[in-house]
Amino acid sequence: MGKSLAVNAGSSTLKFKLFDMPSETVIADGVIDRLGLGNSNVEIKYGDGQKYESVEDVKDHEAAIQLMLDSLINLKILGSYDEITGVGHRVVAGGEIFKDTTVIDAEVVKQIESLAEYAPLHNPANVQGIKAIHKILPDVFSVAVFDTAFHTTMPAVNYMYGIPYEYYEKYGARKYGAHGTSHRYVAGRAAEMLGRPLEDLKLITMHIGAGGSITAIKDGKSYDTSMGFTPLAGIEMATRSGDVDPSLIAYLMNKLDITDSSDMLKILNKKSGLLGVSGVSADMRDLEKVQDENERAKLARDIFINRIVRYVGGYLAELGGADAVVFTAGVGENDIGIRQEVADKLNVFGIAVDPEKNHVRGVERDLSADGSTIKTLLIPTNEELMIVRDIERLRNDQK
Amino acid sequence: MGKSLAVNAGSSTLKFKLFDMPSETVIADGVIDRLGLGNSNVEIKYGDGQKYESVEDVKDHEAAIQLMLDSLINLKILGSYDEITGVGHRVVAGGEIFKDTTVIDAEVVKQIESLAEYAPLHNPANVQGIKAIHKILPDVFSVAVFDTAFHTTMPAVNYMYGIPYEYYEKYGARKYGAHGTSHRYVAGRAAEMLGRPLEDLKLITMHIGAGGSITAIKDGKSYDTSMGFTPLAGIEMATRSGDVDPSLIAYLMNKLDITDSSDMLKILNKKSGLLGVSGVSADMRDLEKVQDENERAKLARDIFINRIVRYVGGYLAELGGADAVVFTAGVGENDIGIRQEVADKLNVFGIAVDPEKNHVRGVERDLSADGSTIKTLLIPTNEELMIVRDIERLRNDQK
Repeated sequence: MGKSLAVNAGSSTLKFKLFDMPSETVIADGVIDRLGLGNSNVEIKYGDGQKYESVEDVKDHEAAIQLMLDSLINLKILGSYDEITGVGHRVVAGGEIFKDTTVIDAEVVKQIESLAEYAPLHNPANVQGIKAIHKILPDVFSVAVFDTAFHTTMPAVNYMYGIPYEYYEKYGARKYGAHGTSHRYVAGRAAEMLGRPLEDLKLITMHIGAGGSITAIKDGKSYDTSMGFTPLAGIEMATRSGDVDPSLIAYLMNKLDITDSSDMLKILNKKSGLLGVSGVSADMRDLEKVQDENERAKLARDIFINRIVRYVGGYLAELGGADAVVFTAGVGENDIGIRQEVADKLNVFGIAVDPEKNHVRGVERDLSADGSTIKTLLIPTNEELMIVRDIERLRNDQK
Repeated sequence: MGKSLAVNAGSSTLKFKLFDMPSETVIADGVIDRLGLGNSNVEIKYGDGQKYESVEDVKDHEAAIQLMLDSLINLKILGSYDEITGVGHRVVAGGEIFKDTTVIDAEVVKQIESLAEYAPLHNPANVQGIKAIHKILPDVFSVAVFDTAFHTTMPAVNYMYGIPYEYYEKYGARKYGAHGTSHRYVAGRAAEMLGRPLEDLKLITMHIGAGGSITAIKDGKSYDTSMGFTPLAGIEMATRSGDVDPSLIAYLMNKLDITDSSDMLKILNKKSGLLGVSGVSADMRDLEKVQDENERAKLARDIFINRIVRYVGGYLAELGGADAVVFTAGVGENDIGIRQEVADKLNVFGIAVDPEKNHVRGVERDLSADGSTIKTLLIPTNEELMIVRDIERLRNDQK
């Protein structure tokens, strides 16, 4: 069948993963960072634990994609470009237009560009990735996989804010959510682990990494999610504040002598969260190490746990219970303590994690203690696999 | 013992209630609005269903208080000012300084003024009320009752935001909550209705009126609350948005061509919530009437219910369950449909309201259906009674 490429063109980074299909075997996994900033690190893992690394100037996404493809040839991972039979691009904002992964054509590219206001750092970069691939591989079957698409099933009562209705009609001011591909992937896996159809399940999926979001899933579909109009809202994150009283924006701008509200939002996006509270690190692993002697590191961690617990409680209420809760992403897959504390605090609802089963990192496992009425699952996420599966799904749909 | 006066000096309104003590009988209940705006409506209810009404120009809080006292004499509600033996002033923001109701002296007035930044419309008005009473009744025993005081027991994990820690240290940027006197009153009544010590109880009190807040009470103390740094945060309200993605501030300012973030916050405070979503009315009674034919009125109502349900679920998680939930304030006391829907959506947690018991407005009643494991109580709030009781409590403390 050939090879499928999942491309994630971030604001200054290109990540990619090449799969052999239909075996779904990963044959290369790479990242090129610091695009346009000089001294880009190129790293490609492939074959049987091999790794290629170099440092060079990569001026933009097009150069990065050319470098990626050249490297795949040079490292003999590919014999020729023709072996790539499908490309899937991760796109951050799909607005209300894109309700599922979509085959890319000129019109789709225009629409993604038109949504740039919803994700000013990301959608333009995503489009650059799409255009660069199109230039080099003009005939390859390409799809766009949207972070927001999974959440387009949310009912209005959950996606609408309590603001003047015309702001929704005129400016699209509503909740869109994010991490949809991840929530969709782990929801599907959860259904398989539980041996039940996804359409019959109520789940709460906790994607907690550097960015984090909690999603309530009803009848297999996204019903509510903690991120909002942008990925700033919701739980505390590595450097993002999560939910705050909107009044704080004006108050702090005044105190900090900031005149442009977007500068205030930069602080809430880049200098807040675990980093801002702890003053030590944005990385949960660092905070875990020092939490016994550093009160603010402990506080940052406690707030993180509290906000997750509060959202899960809120979503249990919205869903009227759940069949399972799922931990995924960096912290969710690897932080044994966070998982245990979150589950312990949710005991009253019949959630319980067995400490022995929980003593594990990054593997798929049912962590539930005996007698728990809501299962707790650990499921490493795999957005790239979801992306290349979508390529095949859409190709088959077109036949 | 004499008569005690509860004074609520708002930004352009003076409300007051005069009690005979210790009988706690209300002997006058008045409001003077449009202070400084011309054509103030003066309304005083007293005696056996009597009512005095007039329209006149009242230029400020001092004039309003003079008019109130004169009217009390003229209407023969008071024989002389000396009959007033205690005055309690409602104050909106007490910050971290005031952890309980406090006897007023010059220093306390200065401290209330120093907290004006936390409640720019309210604290200065509260101080004007205090000063006006002091001028006319210089020797009367006076206390300040703070909306925030009840919430000063919240743990840091709940009152801290995921923002740079120095903003808390330098600028007091944290959650303070509001409606504390109401939450405290209904919590006390709930303990009496349940026949158990307040200190042993976990409660979730829903103060839902034009403003609304949900409070989680643990061991009889405020443990978390839905309002934040200001009363803008939390659930959807009559004209306030409640929680929104903070990114929306910058996005909408750009779209609406607003350059001052405080103008954006005015929209979120005055033109949002039920009014903004429905486009019809800020009054839940109006929305109830038209909800069958007006989709946006129905949506505004559904969002209102959803946010309450989500907060209650979140607080059940934080508290690890609850003994009872309490409805109070305008909507909570009078909107039978909202109460029923909220309770129905919380069934999974063992909350259930008996529709027959629930068919009531504004009376104290246990609404719980048979078999419910968390009680649901309807308790009309009485902040003024709490205020005059505090006068006596502090007077006794001083003895």
